[in-house]
Amino acid sequence: MSYKIIAKDTKTSARLGLLTTPHGTVETPAFMPVATKGSVKTLSPDELRRIGTQAIIANALHLHIRPGHDKVAAAGGLHRFMRWDGPIFTDSGGFQVIRKAFGIRITEEGLNFRDFYSGAARLYTPELCMKTQKALGSDIAMLLDDCPVHDADGDKLRDIVERTLRWAKRGMNRGRKLGIPNIFPIVQGGRDMGLRAHCTEELLKLGPDGFGIGGLSIGEPKPEMMRILGETTHMLPEDKPRYLMGVGSVNEMLDSIALGVDVFDSVFPTQCARHGTIFTREGRYNMKSAKMDSDLRPLDEGCACPVCGEFTRAYINHLLREGEMLGMRLTSIHNVFFLLELVKDARAAILAGRFEEFRSERSLKDDENTEERDLARAG
Amino acid sequence: MSYKIIAKDTKTSARLGLLTTPHGTVETPAFMPVATKGSVKTLSPDELRRIGTQAIIANALHLHIRPGHDKVAAAGGLHRFMRWDGPIFTDSGGFQVIRKAFGIRITEEGLNFRDFYSGAARLYTPELCMKTQKALGSDIAMLLDDCPVHDADGDKLRDIVERTLRWAKRGMNRGRKLGIPNIFPIVQGGRDMGLRAHCTEELLKLGPDGFGIGGLSIGEPKPEMMRILGETTHMLPEDKPRYLMGVGSVNEMLDSIALGVDVFDSVFPTQCARHGTIFTREGRYNMKSAKMDSDLRPLDEGCACPVCGEFTRAYINHLLREGEMLGMRLTSIHNVFFLLELVKDARAAILAGRFEEFRSERSLKDDENTEERDLARAG
Repeated sequence: MSYKIIAKDTKTSARLGLLTTPHGTVETPAFMPVATKGSVKTLSPDELRRIGTQAIIANALHLHIRPGHDKVAAAGGLHRFMRWDGPIFTDSGGFQVIRKAFGIRITEEGLNFRDFYSGAARLYTPELCMKTQKALGSDIAMLLDDCPVHDADGDKLRDIVERTLRWAKRGMNRGRKLGIPNIFPIVQGGRDMGLRAHCTEELLKLGPDGFGIGGLSIGEPKPEMMRILGETTHMLPEDKPRYLMGVGSVNEMLDSIALGVDVFDSVFPTQCARHGTIFTREGRYNMKSAKMDSDLRPLDEGCACPVCGEFTRAYINHLLREGEMLGMRLTSIHNVFFLLELVKDARAAILAGRFEEFRSERSLKDDENTEERDLARAG
Repeated sequence: MSYKIIAKDTKTSARLGLLTTPHGTVETPAFMPVATKGSVKTLSPDELRRIGTQAIIANALHLHIRPGHDKVAAAGGLHRFMRWDGPIFTDSGGFQVIRKAFGIRITEEGLNFRDFYSGAARLYTPELCMKTQKALGSDIAMLLDDCPVHDADGDKLRDIVERTLRWAKRGMNRGRKLGIPNIFPIVQGGRDMGLRAHCTEELLKLGPDGFGIGGLSIGEPKPEMMRILGETTHMLPEDKPRYLMGVGSVNEMLDSIALGVDVFDSVFPTQCARHGTIFTREGRYNMKSAKMDSDLRPLDEGCACPVCGEFTRAYINHLLREGEMLGMRLTSIHNVFFLLELVKDARAAILAGRFEEFRSERSLKDDENTEERDLARAG
């Protein structure tokens, strides 16, 4: 992997970088919309390009199950399959472990579960995970991890971290043999900083191309998340990109950039959008509320997205209330654009040496909304 | 209304015309995608433009109920509200009478029903229908009719036709006063050609700008539909446009054009699309079938639509089976494009004096599929 730091903030650990992949270069800090099953929900690749999306992330486990990585490979890989020619990250599927709906049972071999459709027993090993990501043609593959719940501790947490390390070694061996261009392990360790340090140290020995930071923003209080994140980024080598997995709310992103995070992904903007929650610089609001039905302003005044240039709140309110899919498309475009602009502006602020001011200007007074967060996570 | 016939076929009654409205000219024969509630399901106005849509049709009754015609008027009319700057036809809502879900009770005054959302009693008169269409800014408004079921007969059918005529007179009076640019009454009469003739004669006295042909393709056998249609178009004046309401299957369109029909609308292409049924020159097929999961061909080989130029059946099959909305968007674009191309090619064939050959080339061997038709109608 080629990762080059272009500028560093002096007051914080924020950095501006260029992450080069076989399908193009990503300017960091970057935000990736999530295409779990090979489609960013409701949006077309063309729309993603038009709003400035640099990279997307798909989910290897989901695509392994349906349509099957062999099917995607036969179609020429995921880039060709979904017609996205920019960089594609692929998540390994480890995160699905903490989502009970999947019914995954962990053994030393890997993830054991039943195919949701056929009922057949399946085993998803660290090696199969890499085989899948190779078949998909991933630009940046994540190693399979065992993701603990946020309040895991003691022997249980230690066991999980040790398993993550054994799986990382197996996955990295296989991934390198397969010639996957870039491979990131995922740092785990819960709230135990000793364990996170141990995990980081061991993962470094594998010669990774960058790091995923996992096990955060999964239910722990925000100050704790930020403390753990800050200590973790501090342990990581300067010259490797850092990808904080599953974070997509404004204040968490701004604070994480200040701590040296380079890449984000989250279903938060698209999931919120489908439920009618709109992102603006003043905070979020509910587009389905009755008072919007006569509001002729755009979703967000001053927003340069293609939706705000065309449609009114009154129309989008009508579409959402009537269950017209176009409504969800328009809110999704707006929300994704909003986060893409946020990181774009963050990059400009870092370059201009004023990230700290930018952060305080753009932080939301109230960026905590448990209900929305639970909603986003459920998706 | 300015309607000008440019060319007439010699072997059939097919004609090529130009229908000029305040928002542009429609070349006929034309097909209109249906935007019942102010959105062609899953598609954006921009996508409709890009595939060559000339005009769309919205439903006055639906928009009267939600969001309310006053809300649309306050937003600058339907063109501005939904961002479609081409011609807009608006259906009156009479057709909803035969859809039992609406629970409409007919009195001499108009349609009586309960607001689906608030439970409030509502009365929708022929005058309110025109007020609504004026508020929407309709280019071509339809008069409120009382649409009989296909096997109505005797006194009941006669009563319905007489009520349609009384309503047409009331609606036309109000519509002209309101300055609606173009107003079409709807010819009813079921299978009683004497009644259809009487209806046509009386409607002509109102000085309409064109004619809707109603009460067809609602369950009667196809030969009967074509016989009634042929006799009806024969009664209508040559120099007025004829709009056959609710027809959108290939053979019915081709046969209707041969009988002198100028304009069509139907939810058939979009409704089919959302269920995975794809239109091609060889007929329709089910895109959700398992055997499509490895098919790397476009939806329809040789099709020039934006979807066939980009995506494979394998990908669209995956999207549809996983419930990804992008799948429904892509199939909707393809199916609507297919019918737009059909009428475009029909126009070229009329101009070239070879419509009859064109009709036999493009008629489908099997264009009858009751299940699909019921599906489309239910939408």
